Amino acid sequence: MSEKHSTHKVALMMAPGLEEIEGLTVADLLYRAGVSCELISVGEGLEVVSSHKVKIVCDQHVDDVNFDDFDMIVLPGGIPGTPNLKACEKLMDGVKRFAEQEKPIGAICAAPSILAELGLLKGRNATSNPAFMQVLEEHGALTSEDNVVVDGPFITSRAMGTAIAFGIAIVARLCGTEEAVKLAQTILWIDA
Amino acid sequence: MSEKHSTHKVALMMAPGLEEIEGLTVADLLYRAGVSCELISVGEGLEVVSSHKVKIVCDQHVDDVNFDDFDMIVLPGGIPGTPNLKACEKLMDGVKRFAEQEKPIGAICAAPSILAELGLLKGRNATSNPAFMQVLEEHGALTSEDNVVVDGPFITSRAMGTAIAFGIAIVARLCGTEEAVKLAQTILWIDA
Repeated sequence: MSEKHSTHKVALMMAPGLEEIEGLTVADLLYRAGVSCELISVGEGLEVVSSHKVKIVCDQHVDDVNFDDFDMIVLPGGIPGTPNLKACEKLMDGVKRFAEQEKPIGAICAAPSILAELGLLKGRNATSNPAFMQVLEEHGALTSEDNVVVDGPFITSRAMGTAIAFGIAIVARLCGTEEAVKLAQTILWIDA
Repeated sequence: MSEKHSTHKVALMMAPGLEEIEGLTVADLLYRAGVSCELISVGEGLEVVSSHKVKIVCDQHVDDVNFDDFDMIVLPGGIPGTPNLKACEKLMDGVKRFAEQEKPIGAICAAPSILAELGLLKGRNATSNPAFMQVLEEHGALTSEDNVVVDGPFITSRAMGTAIAFGIAIVARLCGTEEAVKLAQTILWIDA
């Protein structure tokens, strides 16, 4: 999608009922950082309707992608976006394979509960929306109220209001801290 | 679009090449606040492609709306989104009419330059993306580097990284400060 400056390729998973800002903020920041980010529909067709009734046309459908072609998977939150992601067996297989290979996986808001329920956050530092912290704890995660938590391959975050912090952390992981700080300044999120 | 709790209706103007997060963050926050927000295309059809190549399907086309039916107009930034908005005569007439009637108008990033060039910011406090502050000054605005500036009907803001502040200020204007603060806490943008 973007004018590529890096060789990384990110799979941004878009399910009906997603929180569109949690997803698209990542797409925006990766585009600015020169990282390819594909919007992948986990819905009926390529058009996905968000939890706030915004209609977004994705680049590809999950049935047509090979997750091995990607360097990172990102899971936005939202209800029913999160259960809709969880119901996609192909995606769940991809997430588990990424975790085994220590390839980065991002999840925000309700979506870290998916990683917890797959058993991937046992003994890991992680965060989520306050309404889902108990799910993380029940599955052995070491929970934190930080806006973004990074542990091994997992980057987790809390809510729509932390989406920029989440996106900047993803850019830091893929492009390095210096690039991420420069980007945060460019969008006037932090002072230069 | 949203389950309405207020009687306000906002026209969110979506032109090809807009910064989608600057627009959709406002749509998200208004939806949560129970304010109706229509995505109005200023493109060829209902589908608009953002400056980061995200495809969004709007609710209505500008040719089919009557701005008198709305209580607020919001102008996202982006290049060429901003010149594309400016090229729409019907929208510019609507903006001028809103200003005359002191009905609220929001503009972020490059878009406050539209208000300046229409002569609406003369003697008004306003802000914009740093790259457009000179345009505001040349047209008599009293510029500020605050993330959001409110003066009369005008709510202006700076960049993608200030989009949540912009959206919260719009909610404050339409629904009151208490509602806006509660919303900012719900999305975990500020502490409860």
